[in-house]
Order: sequence, then structure tokens, then C-alpha cells
Amino acid sequence: MDKVIFIVCDGLGDRPIAELNRKTPLEAAYTPNLDKLAKGGISGAMNTIDIGIKPGSDTAHLSLLGYDPNTYYTGRGPFETSGIGMEMKVGDVCFRANMGTIDRDLIVIDRRAGRIDDTSEFANLFNNTAIDGVTFLLKKGTGHRVGLIMRGKGLSANISDADPHKLGVKLLEVKPCDDTKEAKFTAKILNKFIRISFLKLKDLPSNKKREKENKLPANCFLIRGAGMFPKIPSFKEKYGLRAVGIAGAGLYKGIAKILGMDTPNIKGATGKPDSNLNAKIEKVIELFDQYDFFFVHFKAADTLGEDGDYQGKIKYIEKIDRAIKPLLDFKDTLVVVTADHSTPCYLKSHSADDVPVTIYGKHVRDDDVDRFNERECAKGRLGHIKGLNLMPIIIDLMGLAELFGA
Amino acid sequence: MDKVIFIVCDGLGDRPIAELNRKTPLEAAYTPNLDKLAKGGISGAMNTIDIGIKPGSDTAHLSLLGYDPNTYYTGRGPFETSGIGMEMKVGDVCFRANMGTIDRDLIVIDRRAGRIDDTSEFANLFNNTAIDGVTFLLKKGTGHRVGLIMRGKGLSANISDADPHKLGVKLLEVKPCDDTKEAKFTAKILNKFIRISFLKLKDLPSNKKREKENKLPANCFLIRGAGMFPKIPSFKEKYGLRAVGIAGAGLYKGIAKILGMDTPNIKGATGKPDSNLNAKIEKVIELFDQYDFFFVHFKAADTLGEDGDYQGKIKYIEKIDRAIKPLLDFKDTLVVVTADHSTPCYLKSHSADDVPVTIYGKHVRDDDVDRFNERECAKGRLGHIKGLNLMPIIIDLMGLAELFGA
Repeated sequence: MDKVIFIVCDGLGDRPIAELNRKTPLEAAYTPNLDKLAKGGISGAMNTIDIGIKPGSDTAHLSLLGYDPNTYYTGRGPFETSGIGMEMKVGDVCFRANMGTIDRDLIVIDRRAGRIDDTSEFANLFNNTAIDGVTFLLKKGTGHRVGLIMRGKGLSANISDADPHKLGVKLLEVKPCDDTKEAKFTAKILNKFIRISFLKLKDLPSNKKREKENKLPANCFLIRGAGMFPKIPSFKEKYGLRAVGIAGAGLYKGIAKILGMDTPNIKGATGKPDSNLNAKIEKVIELFDQYDFFFVHFKAADTLGEDGDYQGKIKYIEKIDRAIKPLLDFKDTLVVVTADHSTPCYLKSHSADDVPVTIYGKHVRDDDVDRFNERECAKGRLGHIKGLNLMPIIIDLMGLAELFGA
Repeated sequence: MDKVIFIVCDGLGDRPIAELNRKTPLEAAYTPNLDKLAKGGISGAMNTIDIGIKPGSDTAHLSLLGYDPNTYYTGRGPFETSGIGMEMKVGDVCFRANMGTIDRDLIVIDRRAGRIDDTSEFANLFNNTAIDGVTFLLKKGTGHRVGLIMRGKGLSANISDADPHKLGVKLLEVKPCDDTKEAKFTAKILNKFIRISFLKLKDLPSNKKREKENKLPANCFLIRGAGMFPKIPSFKEKYGLRAVGIAGAGLYKGIAKILGMDTPNIKGATGKPDSNLNAKIEKVIELFDQYDFFFVHFKAADTLGEDGDYQGKIKYIEKIDRAIKPLLDFKDTLVVVTADHSTPCYLKSHSADDVPVTIYGKHVRDDDVDRFNERECAKGRLGHIKGLNLMPIIIDLMGLAELFGA
């Protein structure tokens, strides 16, 4: 059975850029190795969710890995709490939060409490807080971030954010987004938690000390992205494959963990343009005998697109190209390269433009495409597919598809 | 934010014509400006409803504008009554009608009462007629046409036509098309209206006068196309865009009005081959600052297809091409050109053959297509899409798509 190396280049797709003679960064980049994959593989254009639908990174990854986000996605929270290693149960309502700074009138002064770099004291202080039968579980995330879980009966994730997502406005009251008693109850309890935590945080000795040192106090949890931890079959249950997630950024580790993948630490994998991409491929090589499916995530093309930095995006793509060179020599392996969505430098945000996809392998029907980019892959033999089509195609190429009929 | 000029050439698509060396009229026409749009844009082949489904102009337009006709289309009536400026309420059952001529045995002698050109006397006579709690509202349409609305409680649009759609047969009794009491009630009341109106019309002095002048009397309403006025979000509500409909023919104005678009009168816009197409583009230019979305409708390719007049269709297409030339110079604008359906000259009716579609704009991923026609656009990078895909693609190109996920 072939193994699968499944590479997702976050935000890789783009739109024509005048300064690049109407090429995209991927079209302008020098990518001899990606092109060899395209030349030896089958290519297509893919809408990871659907035509005209602008994907989030979370929903797009679920879809790429064969999990319908309409079924399994209820919000960002569970992927973030998973990413920092919290243990969740079905029915938990999970959130992402920042430690932020508010004033006496609850006006948000800073959304990162002066870029505080360790939130463990605050997370630990409120971990296991119980309010009206609901337990709050907290754990520090990277930098100013905290993961937060509400555990108890009768909860709902259909509630609004407390985080106003901007400065100079009041912290928001959490509101139910539907008429159910669960949403009303969850909003009420979460508002209580926010009040109680503010009263404690504002007078905390370490915050008094921060103020004396002219630092902004971390006196508020800016809570957002409620999501119910779903009942979701693991990758192993769904496909029978031993899978590993090779990612630097928390969200992608979180997705991998939720699907039951192992998520080893990768030295130098930062999720930023300076990330050690070679280390990810070396980790694939190191673990090659232990797994069947390697989900490899490269983050920074997305970040650079959101910065509108098309030159940086070209350089980062060329760095990906160099990093994946060893994969060309792998035997009995399907190498899949694609993206979760486009992040056009012109828009500085995600877009619904389709992304290129190539599946390379000895037994794959190759086509006439010999460059891996948006324009050329769209001419490929896979045609136009959806994200949810990709895993069934891969499973079938592996010879593992279930027979429909007899 | 880019503005959008959305051009629908009714019935544009066709099939190979032997006399044109197996080209379609669009392939045979000289269309340098449409071709420039294709060259600078992204193209595809589109089934406005679905593959193999023959669209009506009404259902196709709903779909093109992003409104699923399976949800919003209940019959032609509301679009016709809207087109002649009648005010409707949710729950109204709307019809199109002709003033026709029947004999004493109710046999249809003429479906247009000798092409009578003003129906206002007849519409006014029966306007506000009340029967068993249902009010009939009537207004003259163009030529022999009348708009008719039934307003009241417990009505249904699921009833058959009174108009037999041919000559020499008896006026039909309206029948319920399902077992609901609403359909039975609506059919009963409408039959009463038809009886009462015939008794009055046959003895009307103006009809007696017509008979003396050897003209056919307008003694019957030939009623058809029942449709319930739907609860439908306006274009502004759905997309947040200020939209205007630039059309000559009533149906298309009606569709635009139902979606809350403004529908200015266009001088010389007749909906016929002689229509002043330049005036439509001039109106777009005149109103450019006032709107975000311009729905421009060109009617006559459909009519010429239904006449089997492929030479006329070629000439009309070339007239469209000249008219749209100024759009090539627009800045920060997406120009979309497509059709609602094919009307092959060979069939002399609509068909389910896909239609070409091109989206032109500075930030659009162009492709290798350099001619706007059925054959070449089908090779384009949009691939094969459905009518309901088009608006989401446009909204995403404008950077306005909602994120699914985070």
C-alpha cells in the first residue's frame, strides 16, 4: 500500500498581480520541484468548501481531510484548545481567549495586555472554577493566548463573543444567538465568569506590579470563537490509516489532534516565514515507517498574503519548493500538494478563488500539466473538484476504497 | 469596491447551424469587444438551472441573480404583474392574461382580440372586483395584455390555466392542481370571475362598437401563469448592493422590481431587435455613481432564435458587441456577460444547452480564452458552473464574501 504525504500550503492561491506581469506569486516563483510533481501527477483546480464560498483555515482543513465542516464545524474554539494540548470531551464548549487590558469602564485598552508572553498564572488561577454546575478549564496558550473550556450539562456554542475585536469600545456582553435555553444559560454563565474574573484580576498582585512597572495589566479574558467539541471519528476510524500531523502553528496541530493524529514537536517549526520547513520534511523521513499518512502544513504563504507581501510570498514558495525536493525520490508514495484557500495579496484576506492541487505517484494517471500553479493546474485532468472529493480520490488511488455495489 | 455590470443576453446560446459551417450565430458573429472581455477575463460554460434542465427566462434570471428558483419561483404571474408596475403583497396570487375573443360556446376565436392595443377600459372595469372575500386587482399591460392579482386569505397558486393556449378549443375551466382546500377555493373563485366578466364583457358598448367595425370583441380574459408573490429578500438585503435593472421588456423589469432594484425607463428600449442598446449602456454610465450593481438585459437574441432567424441573431449579437464597447474602458469594474439560456434557431425554443459566461476585471484570474462564444468559453478556467454559483463568485471577486469558519 502506498503511503501518503499530504502537503497543505496555507493561503497559497492568489490573484494576478500587475507588478508580476499579471502572474500570481506561485506562477512567478521558481519551483522546479513542485513542477516535477505536477508533471508526474494528476492536477486540478479545487474549491475546498464550494464554488464562491470563502473558506476559513479551520473549515477548509476539515474538508480537505474528508470531514464535512457543515457537520463537524461549530466554531474555532475546539481547534485552538486542542492545539495547546487541552483534553476535551464531546459537549464541551471551547473558546480562544486573549489576556487583554480593560479600564474601569470596561473599555478595551489593549487586546494583548502589552503583548504579555506568559499567561500561565492567570490560566491556573481560574482553572477548575465552577459556576452553577459548569466547570471552567483554562490553559495558557502561546504568548498572550489562553484556551478556555466550559464543561457541564445543557451548554450551547451558539453564543456571541465577549471580545469586541477592536480597541476603545466596551467589552461585550455575551448573548445567546438563538432562543434555546442552552444558549441563554451558556451566555449567562460565561458573563458571570467574565465579571468574577475581572474583579479578581484587577487587584491581583502581579497586575499591581505590572502597573508599577508601567506595563498594561492582564485584567480581562477576551473570549471568542465558541465551538462545541464534536463527536468526530478519528482518522484511523474513518480511513484505517495511522496518521501524523507535522505542523508548527497551533490551529493545525489542533485539527490534527482532534482527528486523533499524533503531533510531534518539530524543531524550528514556528508557523512563520522563518519556519524550518526542511525540519518538517526530515520529520516525515524520520517517521516514515511508523505512519501511513503524513499531513504536512506550511503556514506562512497565508500570512504573507494577508500582509500583501507578494515578494515575500514568492520567496516563501521557493523555500517550500526546496524543502520538498527529497519527496521526489520516495517510492510507493503518493505526494499530494494543495492549499486550504487563496489569500490574494490584493485582498489581504482569504478568498473563494480555487486552489491548485496535484497528486503525484507512480500509479497515478498523469496529465499534460507540467507546472504547479493556479493557471496550469486548472487545465489538469482532475478537473474542478471540491475539497471533500480529495480524500476519496486518495483512498481510491491507494486501492482502499469501499466498493459500492458488487 | 469594484462595481458590477451584469449583462444578460437573453437566449444567446445556440447549436451548430449547417448554413454557418456548423457555427452558432455567436461563433459566426464579429464580436471584437466581447472577445476582449473574454481575453481579459475568466470564462466558463454555465447551466443556469442545472445540467439538462431547460430554463424559463424567469427561473433562469432568478438563478443568475442568486435566488434559487426552487425556493422563489411559483409561477410566471408575479414577474409580469411586477413588470407593469402593480404593487403586490406576500400571499397574492398573480397572473398574466390576454384580452381574447371567444364565441357563444366559449370557443377561443382569437388569443389577442384582434391585437387590441389598449386594455385599460377592461382592466379598470374589473379592478377591485370582490368575490367571496377575494379582491381582484387588474391593470393594463402592453398591447392586448392585462395583469391580474387575486388578494385574500386562503389562496393557492397551484391551479391550472383558463387559457387553452390555442385556437378553436373551449376556454378551460380552472382546476386545482392539488387536493388542498386553498387550491380548490382559488380555482372556484377564479372560475366565477371568468363567468361574471364574460357576461359583462360580451355586452359592453365598446365591444358592440368593435363588432360593428368588424373588429373582434375583447370579451374574455385568457388567464394563465398563476404564481404566489413570494417572500423574497431584496438584492440590497441579500448582498448589501445598490442595484438597478436596465431592461426594456416587462418580465425583466418585473424581476428587477421584485428584487427591489430601481428600474428607470430607457428611451428606445423596446425588448425587440430594433431596441436602442446604446441607450442602455449610456444609462449605466449616467447612473454609475448611484449604484453598485447594474443588471443590463438585452432581449432580442431570444426572439430571433424563436423565429429561427440565425442571420438576424448574428446581426443582433454584433449590435450588442458595438453597444458594450465603452465598458472596456471602465476602471474598478467587473463586467459579466452571459445568457439566461440557449434558444437554438433549429429548435425555435429554449434548450438546456449551457451558455457562455465571462467575468472581466483587473483582479480576475484570466485564462487562455480569447473569444466569447459557446465553444471557446467552455474551455475556460471557470469550468462548468451552475447559475446559482455565479453571484457567489462575483461577490467573492468584490472581496465581500462572508467567511465560513475562521
